[in-house]
Amino acid sequence: MEEKIRLGILGYGNLGRGVEIAVKNNSDMELVAIFTRREPEELKTLGKTPVVNVSEIEEWKDKIDVLILCGGSATDLPVQGPKYAEMFNTIDSFDTHAKIPEYYKNVNESAKKGNKVSIISIGWDPGAFSLNRLYAESFLPNGNTYTFWGKGVSQGHSDAIRRIEGVKNAIQYTIPVEDAINRVRNGENPALTTREKHIRECFVVAEVGADKKEIENKIKNMSNYFSDYDTIVHFITEEELKANHSGMPHGGFVIRSGKTGIENQTNQIIEYSLKLESNPEFTSSILVAYARATYRLSKNGEYGAKTIFDIAPNMISRKTNEQLLKELL
Amino acid sequence: MEEKIRLGILGYGNLGRGVEIAVKNNSDMELVAIFTRREPEELKTLGKTPVVNVSEIEEWKDKIDVLILCGGSATDLPVQGPKYAEMFNTIDSFDTHAKIPEYYKNVNESAKKGNKVSIISIGWDPGAFSLNRLYAESFLPNGNTYTFWGKGVSQGHSDAIRRIEGVKNAIQYTIPVEDAINRVRNGENPALTTREKHIRECFVVAEVGADKKEIENKIKNMSNYFSDYDTIVHFITEEELKANHSGMPHGGFVIRSGKTGIENQTNQIIEYSLKLESNPEFTSSILVAYARATYRLSKNGEYGAKTIFDIAPNMISRKTNEQLLKELL
Repeated sequence: MEEKIRLGILGYGNLGRGVEIAVKNNSDMELVAIFTRREPEELKTLGKTPVVNVSEIEEWKDKIDVLILCGGSATDLPVQGPKYAEMFNTIDSFDTHAKIPEYYKNVNESAKKGNKVSIISIGWDPGAFSLNRLYAESFLPNGNTYTFWGKGVSQGHSDAIRRIEGVKNAIQYTIPVEDAINRVRNGENPALTTREKHIRECFVVAEVGADKKEIENKIKNMSNYFSDYDTIVHFITEEELKANHSGMPHGGFVIRSGKTGIENQTNQIIEYSLKLESNPEFTSSILVAYARATYRLSKNGEYGAKTIFDIAPNMISRKTNEQLLKELL
Repeated sequence: MEEKIRLGILGYGNLGRGVEIAVKNNSDMELVAIFTRREPEELKTLGKTPVVNVSEIEEWKDKIDVLILCGGSATDLPVQGPKYAEMFNTIDSFDTHAKIPEYYKNVNESAKKGNKVSIISIGWDPGAFSLNRLYAESFLPNGNTYTFWGKGVSQGHSDAIRRIEGVKNAIQYTIPVEDAINRVRNGENPALTTREKHIRECFVVAEVGADKKEIENKIKNMSNYFSDYDTIVHFITEEELKANHSGMPHGGFVIRSGKTGIENQTNQIIEYSLKLESNPEFTSSILVAYARATYRLSKNGEYGAKTIFDIAPNMISRKTNEQLLKELL
């Protein structure tokens, strides 16, 4: 019998839970431990995988093939990525685009020191969308690439609203502007401003007695987050928020509008889109696929930090070369 | 100055002409020779690249980094692929799906003998669509993948109609059924028959005095090509055919409808689509991108036959690792 790839999870939030579920759809893998900073007995997991305090993680060095880092990009991963890359083959979903080069450098140094493989920034953006940006611009070098996000919940924007005085709770949806997408699809190659690409729609629960007009103004004028967008603010009750806005849908579009032909007269459109009912479950599912690649690369004697661009597609598939030629090519 | 990748073209039809044009959008490459079975002086090319009779191709062994085989899959490539893989690094668009395993084996043997790299079956299907089938099923192992083609001209079906007695000329469009696509997009995971997925629409020029009813019957009942489909036949004049049906548009959709979540309750949809005004120009453009990978793999000391599944995405991009991390990830 084939030996299973032994996975560990570090951090048990939405993403960690998603990985726990996703492993079940990949029978060549098994989850052997979930590591947490909390007291293990406090953690209610979905299955029967041992829960271990992270202080004991080193004892698992030889029992885990790939450690999936499920912490957040703001404060967890910048520390955990470099720290555990020396000890384990790792994979993570680091998604602070502007800080990827620095993060890559730090993880790469650690992974090389430990002779381990670390695949960073896996998910759908960065991740599947990045792949499609690369493929599309390589297939059609003469053209423009457009990325639209949504409709979906932006955690960062929701958090930003929650920090406003008088706000009890809030959810923010990023919505792509349909007309802009259609102009791109039609090969118009429009120059689009931030405002023309996305709308921001906010559902806000105000504290009793809070000044709603004031809250709305503060949201709409918040720089970096809202001031460059057309923003719609709805005030709703906590019950409505729970009933209608507790899912984590997301999605988006990567569209390449390119030209070919002797006089660049030929329009060629490549479009990749996602319609996700659960953002964290999808991200987790991709993480697990790339855990397979992490394991295989390590078995092949490779080491250092890698991104999705470095990984040949066949490394994430369970199919043999013969099956790939016959069934998928 | 960076040395350019020196390309050769073998076979100057729609695809060869497309490659000649596509090279201009890739300033790291240059086209050094076009090989033909015809008399070189008979060939009207678009640029100033030397045209050489294929009988002299061996003299170009050290002057060409990658030979792009632009012949057809029916009779040219099964011979040319294995023949030239021993002499040159090659790339081709072999697209007879059922015969890919055999073709791979033959090319692989030759390429290994010659210490050369041959990337086979590059284009959009096989090619970009194959990639998306692999990625999507690996990201969402629990689900179904659907491929729809069109709206676009099928050369094979057009040829089949032209072989009918009394037919002077014909063009056949493959049209995906919108309702079927929408059911897939909605996560219904329908079981679709051949008839439910595509319609075939034919524009036929009949010879003077031919029996149109008879031609229509022969088309609609032709097994393998039309009998499993709803087929629409229009009779038009040669002038109308030239005026309205001389383009080679194509396209299609690869849609993965997957489930995640503890009870597989979450719908996740991945969709990849192409809308091409020129099928051969797009195929050529992808061939040129993978010529870059062929060259790099060969420089890295690799050899043998490869498919699109074996090639890490960064191998086709002109960007450095630093640029990829910063601009595309």
